[in-house]
Amino acid sequence: MTGVFSSLTEFRNLLADAPQANAKAMGEAEARNGQLTKPPGALGRLEDLAIWYAGWRGNPRPEIANPQVIVFAGNHGVTAQGVSAFPAEVTEQMVLNFQHGGAAINQLSRAAGAKLSVHALSLEAPTADFTQGPAMSEAEVVEALQTGWNAVDANTDLLVVGEMGIGNTTSGAAILNAIYGGEAEDWVGRGTGVDDAGLVNKARVVREGLAANPSKDGLDILRCLGGRELAAMAGAIARARVNRIPVILDGFICTAAAATLAGVSDSALDHTIAGHVSAEAAHFNVLKNLGKEPLLAMNMRLGEASGGALAINILKSAVACHSGMATFAEAGVSDG
Amino acid sequence: MTGVFSSLTEFRNLLADAPQANAKAMGEAEARNGQLTKPPGALGRLEDLAIWYAGWRGNPRPEIANPQVIVFAGNHGVTAQGVSAFPAEVTEQMVLNFQHGGAAINQLSRAAGAKLSVHALSLEAPTADFTQGPAMSEAEVVEALQTGWNAVDANTDLLVVGEMGIGNTTSGAAILNAIYGGEAEDWVGRGTGVDDAGLVNKARVVREGLAANPSKDGLDILRCLGGRELAAMAGAIARARVNRIPVILDGFICTAAAATLAGVSDSALDHTIAGHVSAEAAHFNVLKNLGKEPLLAMNMRLGEASGGALAINILKSAVACHSGMATFAEAGVSDG
Repeated sequence: MTGVFSSLTEFRNLLADAPQANAKAMGEAEARNGQLTKPPGALGRLEDLAIWYAGWRGNPRPEIANPQVIVFAGNHGVTAQGVSAFPAEVTEQMVLNFQHGGAAINQLSRAAGAKLSVHALSLEAPTADFTQGPAMSEAEVVEALQTGWNAVDANTDLLVVGEMGIGNTTSGAAILNAIYGGEAEDWVGRGTGVDDAGLVNKARVVREGLAANPSKDGLDILRCLGGRELAAMAGAIARARVNRIPVILDGFICTAAAATLAGVSDSALDHTIAGHVSAEAAHFNVLKNLGKEPLLAMNMRLGEASGGALAINILKSAVACHSGMATFAEAGVSDG
Repeated sequence: MTGVFSSLTEFRNLLADAPQANAKAMGEAEARNGQLTKPPGALGRLEDLAIWYAGWRGNPRPEIANPQVIVFAGNHGVTAQGVSAFPAEVTEQMVLNFQHGGAAINQLSRAAGAKLSVHALSLEAPTADFTQGPAMSEAEVVEALQTGWNAVDANTDLLVVGEMGIGNTTSGAAILNAIYGGEAEDWVGRGTGVDDAGLVNKARVVREGLAANPSKDGLDILRCLGGRELAAMAGAIARARVNRIPVILDGFICTAAAATLAGVSDSALDHTIAGHVSAEAAHFNVLKNLGKEPLLAMNMRLGEASGGALAINILKSAVACHSGMATFAEAGVSDG
């Protein structure tokens, strides 16, 4: 599978040529929805979610049987600029915690009935400090995209991706500032918990990163300001788009990774929904820019795919209602 | 169990004397929360939910093993006033649909891993039309409260109650108007889907109901303007309070039933959280009056316990994180 693409251009072309949702299945799902034993529209957003899912799966009465959660971990050279409240070695310590089942995402994946996969990307070789130049070479970003692409199981029918990487809220803020403009202060937040001085420092680092990397194209911005785990999330989200696997986006950093794909085609992120809006202040703004209304607002700011995983059961419930409910005719209920 | 109370006064006294949450367990849960492998506060509201649940269960590291969803059904004499878009026989038809597994709540309960119980309350004998006088006698409301009280399983560790009853959004609106004041128009909504003229008619019916029943006490308001399924929900919520079983409230009608208990003591509803805010416009207002912030906002307006059941997995996930995660010391992770 590693050979599916070998450059950013090939990756971009694969994503640009991805098939659309199945309009026929979606139409049939809409018709079915209108016959179910409930007042029209009474399940609210659950109805829209089920119809959207049916379209992407090409099945008017689908099931969610194999959700997969993937956490990618990477280290960031920009931690040299003092941007995080935690030391860089925590990235690797948390990978071990994931592998031993002790992290939040282990419990959340189990509660969602999802398979959890963890990929540590060259933790021993942090990306370059992006205040000094590009974080990654093209070969490096392509390798990380491939890792993400290949991490998606063939039978996955719902994907959530997330990340662990000390320093990566700064990377996410720099990416979003480069894509959407505005001031560095619009995009930096407290991450794992920096203080006011830390926030000022993060804004400086983002400004210096943009000055050192004057790129305007999403995928090149990913290379210059991203990290390996962000590129891997982008690769997995793109693979899901090509294979018509619906994706629930996690929080700020996951959404920043997704945003680097948005420019590739008008429909590059149509297979994604926002699992939640996080406490990282700028997450709300990037979701607005992407036109995504979050399912949950629980004031979470953990990353690790946690908010996306928490939303899996919402989508499962929506699809279970859609595919499992009786119609008015089947149940002998008067339809008003 | 039917003999636990035999009058509204005895019921009120049981609820007023209910034990509080276990402060020691809650304190221990807070201490544990501070040691888990995540930045402080990074799980947001999930942390508060887990600590709240621990307090009510008296266990600093609890599990949710036996959630129970109960749907109560009742018929309303006030349907004679033309307040619903659906005919009254739909109440009984939907009870059969629940029993055959074809309704939304069947799918949602299964997705939440919850036991579903259904109780039809004297469907052949609708309550009296409350525009003409009290909907129920004291004996009738006490019997419905008992049905609710007795419907809660002894081993239930999380309760969701909901309802089915054509006409019952009008009953809920009348109850809330009587408790909180304001105009009838502030509390009526479209229910299963009445048009503008239907909305005007519902407001008239509520006004006439309040004029015919000048009661100011919550439990007497429940008797005069409620229905059997609303009283049964109130009985189950009170039983849960006495047995320290946390409750997730469903939508507008469930919350109206809960609101009739709020005046009994300052802590009568401290064991409850709001599962969602529904599309029924006044639901937001009653939650504000009760000081409850909803977990979900999915634009649902189905009743049947659907919004409460959808929220079960959120609370389960919160408790799973709290009780299942490793501490910094256990995982060997640096704590910043």
